[in-house]
Amino acid sequence: MSNVGFIGLGIMGAPMAGHLQAGGHTIHTVEHRTPTPKGLIDGGAVVCDSMRQVAELCDVIIVMVPDTPQVDSVLFGPEGVAEGLSAGKVVVDMSSISPIETKAFAARINELDCEYVDAPVSGGEVGAKAASLTIMVGANPQAFEQVKPLFELMGKNITLVGGNGDGQTCKVANQIIVALNIEAVAEALVFASKAGADPAKVREALMGGFASSKILEVHGERMIKRTFDPGFRIELHQKDLNLALNGARALGLSLPNTATAQELFNACAAQDGAAWDHSAMVKALETLACHDVA
Amino acid sequence: MSNVGFIGLGIMGAPMAGHLQAGGHTIHTVEHRTPTPKGLIDGGAVVCDSMRQVAELCDVIIVMVPDTPQVDSVLFGPEGVAEGLSAGKVVVDMSSISPIETKAFAARINELDCEYVDAPVSGGEVGAKAASLTIMVGANPQAFEQVKPLFELMGKNITLVGGNGDGQTCKVANQIIVALNIEAVAEALVFASKAGADPAKVREALMGGFASSKILEVHGERMIKRTFDPGFRIELHQKDLNLALNGARALGLSLPNTATAQELFNACAAQDGAAWDHSAMVKALETLACHDVA
Repeated sequence: MSNVGFIGLGIMGAPMAGHLQAGGHTIHTVEHRTPTPKGLIDGGAVVCDSMRQVAELCDVIIVMVPDTPQVDSVLFGPEGVAEGLSAGKVVVDMSSISPIETKAFAARINELDCEYVDAPVSGGEVGAKAASLTIMVGANPQAFEQVKPLFELMGKNITLVGGNGDGQTCKVANQIIVALNIEAVAEALVFASKAGADPAKVREALMGGFASSKILEVHGERMIKRTFDPGFRIELHQKDLNLALNGARALGLSLPNTATAQELFNACAAQDGAAWDHSAMVKALETLACHDVA
Repeated sequence: MSNVGFIGLGIMGAPMAGHLQAGGHTIHTVEHRTPTPKGLIDGGAVVCDSMRQVAELCDVIIVMVPDTPQVDSVLFGPEGVAEGLSAGKVVVDMSSISPIETKAFAARINELDCEYVDAPVSGGEVGAKAASLTIMVGANPQAFEQVKPLFELMGKNITLVGGNGDGQTCKVANQIIVALNIEAVAEALVFASKAGADPAKVREALMGGFASSKILEVHGERMIKRTFDPGFRIELHQKDLNLALNGARALGLSLPNTATAQELFNACAAQDGAAWDHSAMVKALETLACHDVA
């Protein structure tokens, strides 16, 4: 049992910190974007004056904030985590951010004789609440073993992918595949529908064969039943594909279908769909189809 | 037990006809592109003088040829199947061809008081030999029930998708998803690799989550192990995506990622890769990535 810092108690962070508290750890946090949830306070969470102080009082400091600039600010801003670190502590970033910036952040933390672990998650709010998150980790193996018991309180599929940045790279790869598999199912079902077939029967016929995927199963059904309440919001997937496309430009490679998928998400957002479930990408393809099929 | 016509005894057709023969049916065929396999002859297959004669002697005539023009020629060419049909016979096209042309072919066969069943398959040579093909059927329900016992000798997942053309539409939808899921896995693994992560570890971490698919499992592994011998040849998938793209134009809809996937297959073919397995699409993306990643 130990003092664990947890910065970022939003929709994901609050239930994750709750599982750590239930596991016997004393959560240390600061008032950040939202007030500390009452459940955590009642459970004995300590609200510090600054992120610096959180880092001073804890051996492991977890960060769970929206994007790269917020991680930068939490770690390296005034009264930030870095100012409170001393040798031997571990910074764990569970946000989904740039793999390239992550490597730079890790190097700066290592210079303070501390370990850095990037550990983005998938599974969303449901997975956070159920402690069933998939956790993709970039770290040296010793640091991974040190914080693994904490991960096991929050998630189920926990993989050490490689060194620093590789956890974030894996998360970006995950979001590329999810977006493009949604796009694939959408193209196939729009084609089937416009050609006069019943898309529900087509989906059924394809399940179990080489076209089968988790996306055909879950998001294909959403497209057919027109249930586009999230789920996973398009604006969040736009953020993730932005990491992929910016990363691709920086690394010198081309991701043509990721770029198209982002444009289709942009088209949904332009129709007030930023908060639709990402399966609603099919609507953007439908606007690219004529309404008078012979 | 009955006389069954089978026109097109190639890599797929020969083992399929063999299963029908083993099921007690008398195969009737013609010398077409290749000589009738010795196994079928030894099993009692009848080699007719013309496709017209095959249609005269059989109640069910199965066609399994490469593409739309060949089906057109087999059915409606000189001494073709249509010339030998009489009321009540059933034409079953198991080739993968245009859904739009299929509807026209069906109408012409129906005018002869005969039934038309489109029943393209997936599963490839392996599935044909193992009698485990997926069969996607477009037909009226009575005609489907009539030929279903024959399908059950050749395949496992047999779905009546809808009326004529809907079987072919379903097959095109299948090929769209398979191509785009391959493209998705390829973009994700190239991104991961260029970002410095181990693509094998990334694939492992993603299996079981929302990115999981039959393609991530089978074709993702081929990309990592660099085993690009078919499998399913790129030139065959080019033919299928051509059906999708021509169909999209005729129907008035846009399939942007299918178009890109076809271009990537074209790029492979340009590098003498027409006979590579379709998972080798990853090679085309690799040529779009710089070789000097910092």
